[in-house]
Amino acid sequence: MSSNAYTQLEKRFARMGALGEAAGMLHWDMAAVMPEGGHESRAEQLATINVIAHEMLTSAETGDLLALAGEAGLDDWQRANLAEMKRVHAHATALSPDLVEAATRAKAACEKTWREARPKGDFKLVLPKLQAVLDLAREGALAKAEKLGLTPYDALMDEFEPGARAADITPIFDDYAAFLPEFLGRVLEHQRAQGPAIQPQGPFSIESQKKLGEKLMAVIGFDFNHGRLDTSLHPFCGGTPDDVRITTRYNEDQFADAMMGVVHETGHAMYERGLPIAWRRQPVGQARGMALHESQSLIIEMQAGRSQAFCRFLSPLLNETYPGNEAAFAPDNLARFYTQVAPGFIRVSADEVTYPAHVILRYRLEQGLISGDLQLADLPGAWNEGMKKLLGLTVTNDREGCLQDIHWFDGAFGYFPCYSLGAMTAAQFFAAAVAAEPGIPDAIERGDFVPLMGWLRTHVHGRASSLPSPEIIRAATGQPLDAGIFRRHLQQRYLGTA
Amino acid sequence: MSSNAYTQLEKRFARMGALGEAAGMLHWDMAAVMPEGGHESRAEQLATINVIAHEMLTSAETGDLLALAGEAGLDDWQRANLAEMKRVHAHATALSPDLVEAATRAKAACEKTWREARPKGDFKLVLPKLQAVLDLAREGALAKAEKLGLTPYDALMDEFEPGARAADITPIFDDYAAFLPEFLGRVLEHQRAQGPAIQPQGPFSIESQKKLGEKLMAVIGFDFNHGRLDTSLHPFCGGTPDDVRITTRYNEDQFADAMMGVVHETGHAMYERGLPIAWRRQPVGQARGMALHESQSLIIEMQAGRSQAFCRFLSPLLNETYPGNEAAFAPDNLARFYTQVAPGFIRVSADEVTYPAHVILRYRLEQGLISGDLQLADLPGAWNEGMKKLLGLTVTNDREGCLQDIHWFDGAFGYFPCYSLGAMTAAQFFAAAVAAEPGIPDAIERGDFVPLMGWLRTHVHGRASSLPSPEIIRAATGQPLDAGIFRRHLQQRYLGTA
Repeated sequence: MSSNAYTQLEKRFARMGALGEAAGMLHWDMAAVMPEGGHESRAEQLATINVIAHEMLTSAETGDLLALAGEAGLDDWQRANLAEMKRVHAHATALSPDLVEAATRAKAACEKTWREARPKGDFKLVLPKLQAVLDLAREGALAKAEKLGLTPYDALMDEFEPGARAADITPIFDDYAAFLPEFLGRVLEHQRAQGPAIQPQGPFSIESQKKLGEKLMAVIGFDFNHGRLDTSLHPFCGGTPDDVRITTRYNEDQFADAMMGVVHETGHAMYERGLPIAWRRQPVGQARGMALHESQSLIIEMQAGRSQAFCRFLSPLLNETYPGNEAAFAPDNLARFYTQVAPGFIRVSADEVTYPAHVILRYRLEQGLISGDLQLADLPGAWNEGMKKLLGLTVTNDREGCLQDIHWFDGAFGYFPCYSLGAMTAAQFFAAAVAAEPGIPDAIERGDFVPLMGWLRTHVHGRASSLPSPEIIRAATGQPLDAGIFRRHLQQRYLGTA
Repeated sequence: MSSNAYTQLEKRFARMGALGEAAGMLHWDMAAVMPEGGHESRAEQLATINVIAHEMLTSAETGDLLALAGEAGLDDWQRANLAEMKRVHAHATALSPDLVEAATRAKAACEKTWREARPKGDFKLVLPKLQAVLDLAREGALAKAEKLGLTPYDALMDEFEPGARAADITPIFDDYAAFLPEFLGRVLEHQRAQGPAIQPQGPFSIESQKKLGEKLMAVIGFDFNHGRLDTSLHPFCGGTPDDVRITTRYNEDQFADAMMGVVHETGHAMYERGLPIAWRRQPVGQARGMALHESQSLIIEMQAGRSQAFCRFLSPLLNETYPGNEAAFAPDNLARFYTQVAPGFIRVSADEVTYPAHVILRYRLEQGLISGDLQLADLPGAWNEGMKKLLGLTVTNDREGCLQDIHWFDGAFGYFPCYSLGAMTAAQFFAAAVAAEPGIPDAIERGDFVPLMGWLRTHVHGRASSLPSPEIIRAATGQPLDAGIFRRHLQQRYLGTA
C-alpha cells in the first residue's frame, strides 16, 4: 500500500516535472526570441502552468499520498526521491495558489519593465513593479519562515540551496570582506609590477564570436544534439537536461566576456546533461542547489578555463580566429589577460578575486530588503555606498548599479550568495579532481575535458539530488566545505604563493 | 446560478486556452529551433500539457457546469461561447485520456522519424510509426463517430472544420476533378501560345530572401512586435494571436516559393492577429475552422498576391533586391511568372489550378485509410496511381509523393479538404470585398493592404467563432459558398474569360 503510494507519487511528480520543463522552455523563448508584444500572453501561459503545477503539488491527494508512503521496499534513490518530494511539498504548501499566481504575474511584468529601464538607467521607472515583486516575495518569505521554522531570509535561501543559513554564510562572507582589501592591494601591486597584459585588437564580429563559443562548447563536451547557443540580454542556462539552451550577449569591441560567458554557461549545461536519465522529471533527478550548480559553471570557467593549461590550448585557436594578435594571444599573456584583476561595476564581468565583493554587497542589501530595514527607494543609494566601501568604486548610473542584474526583478531573493559558495566549492572540487586524476591539467592543455568531466559526472552530476550538498562535497572531496582552499587557489594564481 | 456556472466555465476554459497557447509555442520551438535530441522530452511535455487540458475539459466538474449553465442573462458572444464550449466538450468526451496521451506520443515519435525518412524518400522507415498514428486516429474516429452520430471520416473533418461533411464535399471535388482536365488543357495551350515567362536568374541568398519576406509581411500589415519569421522544414503559422510565429524554407536557386510561402502564412497570421482581444483564450475567440483559415491565407497569396495589381507593386521591389532581372520583373512578366500553371508533384509548390487535384488525391486516399479500405503498405502505390490519373505525373520517389506533407505523420486526417474549400471561399470573399470597396485593387497596387484587411477584420477575423462558417460566409458575401465563383476567377485569370 505504501509502495503503491510511492508509485502514484512518482507519476504525479513526473507530470509536475514535465510542466516545469515546459515552463523552462517558455522562459527561454521569452528571453531569447519572443517579440515584446508577446509578454502579456506569455505571462498568462506561465502563470497557468505554474498554478496548475502548484495546485498539483499542494493538493490534498498529494499530501495524503506523502503521509501514506513509507520507505519499506524502496531502494536508496527512491527513498531520496521521497525525501525530496516531502521537501518541495513543505516549501510549496507554505504558499497559497493566489500568491503563486500573483507573484508569477508580477515577475513577468517587472521583468518586462526592467528590460526597458536598464538601458536607460532609470530605476524609478521599474520601482513600482519591483515593489510589487518585493512585497510578494516578503509575504512568501514570512509564510515559509513560519512553516519551516526559519528566519524569512533563510527560508528564501533554502529554496535555492537547501540547508543554506545566514548564520553559516555571514561569517564566511565577513571573513572574505576582511581578507579582500589587503589581498586585492597585493594583487594589484603584483600586476602593476608585471605591467599590463597586451590587449587583443578588434573589432570582433558577432558571427566569429558565436563560432568560437560553439567551438569551445564542443571542446568542453557540449552535445549540440541536445542543446543550443543563442543570444539574450542576460546570459543564462535554461531549457531542460535533454535540450539545454544557453545564451550569451556579444560586444564587437571585445570578445572575452562573451567567450568566458559561454564557457561558464557550458559548465551549467554539462551539469544538467549529466543528471541521471533514469530520474528525469523526478525531484531526486534535479540538479542539487544553486550553489552546487554555480560550482559546476565556475569549475569550468574559473578553475579550468583561466588556467595556464587552458591558455596554452586556447592560444592557437585564437590566433586562427583573430589573426594579427599573436603577442596578445601568447599563452603567458593570455593567462595574464584572463586573470586580470580590476575592480569594476558589473558582476558578470568581474574577475574571481573581486566577484565575491559583488555577491557580498547583494547579500547584505537583500537581507535588508526582506527584513524591511532597507526601503526600495533607498536601494540605489545603499548600493552605491556599499560598492564604494567594498571595491572603492563610485557608481554614476544605475545601469551599472542596482539595475544590472535580472534576479531581483525576477523575484529571486536569497539566490546571490550561491555564486560565491559555488566559487569556493569549485576550488575544492578541482583540487580533489586533480588529486585523484593528476593528468587533468595536461588533458585540458590538449583541449581534452574528458578526464575532468568524467570525475564530475561520477562525483557530482550523476548524484543529482540523492544527497544534500554538504554530503556530496564530503563524499567527493573527503572533507566538508573549506573556504581556505579557495583563498589558497587565489593566492597561488594571483601571487604565485600558496 | 446558471450565469455563475457560465462565469466558472469561462475561468476553466481560459486555463485550457493558456495551456493550448503554451503547447502552440512548444510546437513552434520543436519545428523551428529544437535540436533533434530534445524530441523525447518534448513529447513528454506536450503529452502532459495535452492530457491535463483534456482532463480539465472532460472532467465531471466541466460536464456539470455545462449542464447547469443556461443562456439567461448572457449576451450574444457569451451564448456563442457557451455553444462552442459544448461543441469542443462533445468532441473531447468522445476520447479517453489514455487515447489522447498515446496519440500525442505516437505523433511526436512519428514526426521525428518522418523528418529522417522524408529526405531519404524511405516510406518503409516511417511506416510502423505512421501505422501507430493511423490506428489511434481510427480508434478516435470511431469513438467520435458514435458520440456525434457521424461517419468516422466526417467526425474527423468536423474537428477541423465544424459542419464539413463528405456528402457535401465529394460532389464539389468530383465536379472539379471533371472540370480540370479540359480546363487545364486549355490553360496549358494558352500559356504555350504566350510563350514561357522570363525566369529571374539567381542565386538568391537566404539572407536577401528573409529580408524580402519580412518586407512583404510588413506591407501586408504583419506587426513584428507580435510575431516572428523563422525557418522550418514545413512552413506553417503557429504561436498565439499575440505572438504569431510563421516559418518558411529557403532555396537559393529560386525565391518564389519562399516568398509566396511567406505571403501565404502572413494571411494566416493576420487572421490570428485580427481575432477579438476581448475573447483571447476562450473558445468563441478562436479562429473558426481550418477551411476559413485557409481562405485567409489564400485571399492574400492567391487573390491579392498573384494579381496584376500586386505584380505592379512588386516589380520595383524585386528590381531593387535582385538587380539584373529587369525583364523578368516587368509587371506583365511577373504576373505570368506567378500564374504559371504546371502540373507538379509537390502540393505546397502547386499553382492554384492544379492545387485542388493534390487535395482531391489526399481526400480520397485518407477516406480509404480511415475506412480501412486502403492499407498503409499500399499507400505509396495508390498515391502514385492517383497522381498519374489526376495530373498525368509519374512519381519516382516517395519524397515527392506520400512523404511530402507532415500532416498524416502528425495525425491530421480530415484536414486536407479544408485547403480547397478555403480556396473557393477566398475567391468569394475577394469578389465581395472588391464589390464593397472598389478601391482595393488600386490600393494593393500601391502596397496598401489596409482596405482589404479592414474588410476582412470586420467580416471575418473579428467574428472569430461567434457564428458557424456558412453563416460567416453568407453574412460577409450575401450568399452561401458558391464554387462557381472560384471557377470563374480561374477562367478570368488564366484564359482571360469569365
